[in-house]
Amino acid sequence: MPQISKKSAAMPASAIRKFVPLSDAAKADGVKVYHLNVGAPDIKSPRCALDAVAQKCEELDHISYTNSAGFLELRKGLIDKYYKKIGIDIELKDILVEVAGSEAFAVAMQIACDKGDEILVFEPFYTNYNTFAYLNGITLKAVHTDIRKGFALPPVEEMEKMVTPATKAVLISNPSNPSGTLYSREELESIGELCRRHDLFLISDEVYREYCFTEEPHFSAFNLPGLEQNVILVDSVSKRYNLCGTRIGCIISRNAEVMAAAMKYAQSRLCPPVLGQYAAIGALDTPQEYFDETVEEYRKRRDCAVEMLNAMPGVFAPCPQGAFYTIAELPVDNAESFVKWMLTDFRKDGATTMVTPVASFYKTPGEGLRQVRIAYVLEVPELRKALDVLAAGLEAYPGRTL
Amino acid sequence: MPQISKKSAAMPASAIRKFVPLSDAAKADGVKVYHLNVGAPDIKSPRCALDAVAQKCEELDHISYTNSAGFLELRKGLIDKYYKKIGIDIELKDILVEVAGSEAFAVAMQIACDKGDEILVFEPFYTNYNTFAYLNGITLKAVHTDIRKGFALPPVEEMEKMVTPATKAVLISNPSNPSGTLYSREELESIGELCRRHDLFLISDEVYREYCFTEEPHFSAFNLPGLEQNVILVDSVSKRYNLCGTRIGCIISRNAEVMAAAMKYAQSRLCPPVLGQYAAIGALDTPQEYFDETVEEYRKRRDCAVEMLNAMPGVFAPCPQGAFYTIAELPVDNAESFVKWMLTDFRKDGATTMVTPVASFYKTPGEGLRQVRIAYVLEVPELRKALDVLAAGLEAYPGRTL
Repeated sequence: MPQISKKSAAMPASAIRKFVPLSDAAKADGVKVYHLNVGAPDIKSPRCALDAVAQKCEELDHISYTNSAGFLELRKGLIDKYYKKIGIDIELKDILVEVAGSEAFAVAMQIACDKGDEILVFEPFYTNYNTFAYLNGITLKAVHTDIRKGFALPPVEEMEKMVTPATKAVLISNPSNPSGTLYSREELESIGELCRRHDLFLISDEVYREYCFTEEPHFSAFNLPGLEQNVILVDSVSKRYNLCGTRIGCIISRNAEVMAAAMKYAQSRLCPPVLGQYAAIGALDTPQEYFDETVEEYRKRRDCAVEMLNAMPGVFAPCPQGAFYTIAELPVDNAESFVKWMLTDFRKDGATTMVTPVASFYKTPGEGLRQVRIAYVLEVPELRKALDVLAAGLEAYPGRTL
Repeated sequence: MPQISKKSAAMPASAIRKFVPLSDAAKADGVKVYHLNVGAPDIKSPRCALDAVAQKCEELDHISYTNSAGFLELRKGLIDKYYKKIGIDIELKDILVEVAGSEAFAVAMQIACDKGDEILVFEPFYTNYNTFAYLNGITLKAVHTDIRKGFALPPVEEMEKMVTPATKAVLISNPSNPSGTLYSREELESIGELCRRHDLFLISDEVYREYCFTEEPHFSAFNLPGLEQNVILVDSVSKRYNLCGTRIGCIISRNAEVMAAAMKYAQSRLCPPVLGQYAAIGALDTPQEYFDETVEEYRKRRDCAVEMLNAMPGVFAPCPQGAFYTIAELPVDNAESFVKWMLTDFRKDGATTMVTPVASFYKTPGEGLRQVRIAYVLEVPELRKALDVLAAGLEAYPGRTL
């Protein structure tokens, strides 16, 4: 019998999706499961995005390949109708359409690093960064950020101590998945300085850019002066328009070598999904009110979530300024055991709530063992019910530490 | 300034797409370019596929993620409505939806091989196999097949000499891109025997399965008795329904370890394109007449292409039994120079014809230098014009060797 590769056998399974069988089993038993575990919101997509696809499917008689870099119409539209509006000034040579943010950061990491190279990343961080690092023999070195300090970045001198000759990039998610932390212009400038001093790439994952709850607008790493050759921007339409399933994102850089390499990776998979590209072209006509209303909706949900969480005895949750996640520290022996127990043992009025343990978002062993990520992807009335169930679960949990 | 990785810098560019700038330049000059160079046919998709997408886009209010393995409805539909019909008997655990054939064979190769491992492949072969082998440090070892023998496989003893302890898989494309060769049941059985004797995976890329011009139906490697743990089937809706741009394919295996590993790779990119999945679900209702008519259309084109090619002085083209490609040996000094010259220098009545040099489809240096691949993706009247232009080009070409 043939044996699968060691690389495939030892590959870690998704930390976020591993409890899905337990929630499926609960649902099969007739239990209502409130999903606060995945970043799959209930927000409507802009109608113009879906209409554009429907119209194309009526007009076309087949679906052919596009340029490996994506439709010219999409790339031009992104430049003129989206990035220009938010103050990111790019040309056609600087952008390439990817199969969602997932492909964009997998490619960005490979462009920056050979096997054995290192990337600095701020923990807690999106767990799929681990997967692509693993598959390419890249080491992620975690710069720790602390829930009690609102996940603020440490002084740049602390980070600088971690730079070695093998360090090739800093990877930042801003606003952050999983913590919802929004980094300030000053924080980004200090990271930028570090990258310039050590000739590092700065890979900036900004897929949650539209969801910021501060007065001043989001500051993109792409606009750091003097970092034109260093910054690789990773973006996606998934969260911006709630088109997660279309699998359309992009990679943006003013570094010509980066873009030439990105084109070679792009050619190897022929082209990005065409129907999703039509949705993304349609989404370019999204009115500003769509974003205003969505941000307002998420702000309400965040306020509700943070207030309710901090009102639960022994729970601590900082107030995040972006994305649609928050991390909460719970009065439990172990968050993973608690999440499992909620799915297998706890019901309130026939319902339970599913959240995501955060330990796997940390690289440092032993960190975040009592933390969970809450995606506030339900409307406030449902979110209240979900958090009431969570609160009741915390009171009943045998491993409670209060 | 940061430097891109050595892996990215040394990555080969697409051999198929590298002449696109020359054809773009010709078109900018007002030249009509007949494209026989890419496998992007003009055949209509089944109407049910496109209608399904349009309807979903009218009904839905946003596009969320699906299961990483694809919609359950799609996997069940593929099993019951497609694979059962063609005699491939599988269960839900044996199939996973991929981002087209491209992702499916990239994943299959990584499941079979660690860095330093080897895969036997029959040259000439699809050039993107090289790219994924390169990116994962896998060595492709080419088993040579000869245009003058209709690209028939060599005796299995010849292949067996190439097996080393590092050999982990045999990769076959059936019918073959680029040669259109259809492998017989006997040929597959001998390869299967070899795989069983040496515990190798047999990765069978069957994306052109529907286009066979023989009396007996296509025989899938999946149905080789005793090879249940060895075979990994790579498939796609791209060519079957002319839905190339939807980026939907699948990986199929009865080997549980293979499918568990495939799921881990699938989770890392979250889910396959959702709108493309709707197209694929709709396509399941394609009537048999669609395939019958398409095969008949391709047969006419093949007959036209092979007849016209062999009627050109000094040209030799075997008659392929599958896919929509044929390889022709030309009376030229070098096929790549000829293809470039056609795009930059030769016009007949304001038109030129673009074909693909085949040398890069061979692994053995010096092989196929005078061969081109012709994709018969145009209707017969257009195909005739395209080949007339090619014939005139061959007569005028300064590097002609006749």
